[in-house]
Amino acid sequence: MEGGGPPIHPFISPLTYLLGTWRGEGEGGFPTINSFKYGEEIKFWHTGKPVISYTQKTWKLESGEPMHAESGYWRPKPDGSIEVVIAQSTGLVEVQKGSYNADNKIVKLKSDMVGNASKVKEITRVFELINGELSYVVQMATHLNSLQPHLRALLRKL
Amino acid sequence: MEGGGPPIHPFISPLTYLLGTWRGEGEGGFPTINSFKYGEEIKFWHTGKPVISYTQKTWKLESGEPMHAESGYWRPKPDGSIEVVIAQSTGLVEVQKGSYNADNKIVKLKSDMVGNASKVKEITRVFELINGELSYVVQMATHLNSLQPHLRALLRKL
Repeated sequence: MEGGGPPIHPFISPLTYLLGTWRGEGEGGFPTINSFKYGEEIKFWHTGKPVISYTQKTWKLESGEPMHAESGYWRPKPDGSIEVVIAQSTGLVEVQKGSYNADNKIVKLKSDMVGNASKVKEITRVFELINGELSYVVQMATHLNSLQPHLRALLRKL
Repeated sequence: MEGGGPPIHPFISPLTYLLGTWRGEGEGGFPTINSFKYGEEIKFWHTGKPVISYTQKTWKLESGEPMHAESGYWRPKPDGSIEVVIAQSTGLVEVQKGSYNADNKIVKLKSDMVGNASKVKEITRVFELINGELSYVVQMATHLNSLQPHLRALLRKL
């Protein structure tokens, strides 16, 4: 969206490998639902501030029909900590806190708060760059199920 | 972004007047800060689901330098109620609940939850279509100040 122009803020420079548009496929599951596959696009961009903007959307692989969408902001700090806030199209909000490792290109997040959720109690998100591809695993705990894998995907930068 | 194609879900049809890109100017203030003016762009779009996607960004009028940004999802229900979830570039999340009036083209929201905020206790947002322009007023309460106007703007559809 605002891509290109402004210089990169030093706070986000360890995570510049994320900037751009990523596309790929993912797989979801949980004890309470049938497993499913999806297409996905993630965009990361910046406007010169110490914040990375984030949007994500998924679609059904066969029909291209939209499924989930979410958006928010990644706020890395020089000490290696990071805060991520996310609003989901399903009506949830998340405050995620965690850490990043610039050498291993891994970001580990754990929900500090999940808001407006009747069942979801906890969400963890781990993003890792593997052979130039962006991999993530989302784990979820609900009022009935302990923390376990819910979503995983592998995306290539466009 | 996804604009154009899919049919409008009946849940969001009372709010289709919002869909599109709005641009204009706003003014901010609060007892604890100097008042300021800003340029602003708001985008509303849909993908055929019962949800309106929302992004907003503001900039300094003189320099065009980016200021605030936020994004989220509006979820109107047929009974006239509406839920809005927002992630802010400042690291806050909001769950807003309220009501819309399709005849008067007014949407009234009040925070059900403000997350990851050290000072902000409550946020209200009123959006109203006035002579074809989109007007909003944001009020805010903090740990030190009671609910009072913080932001107001007037935007024209592009």
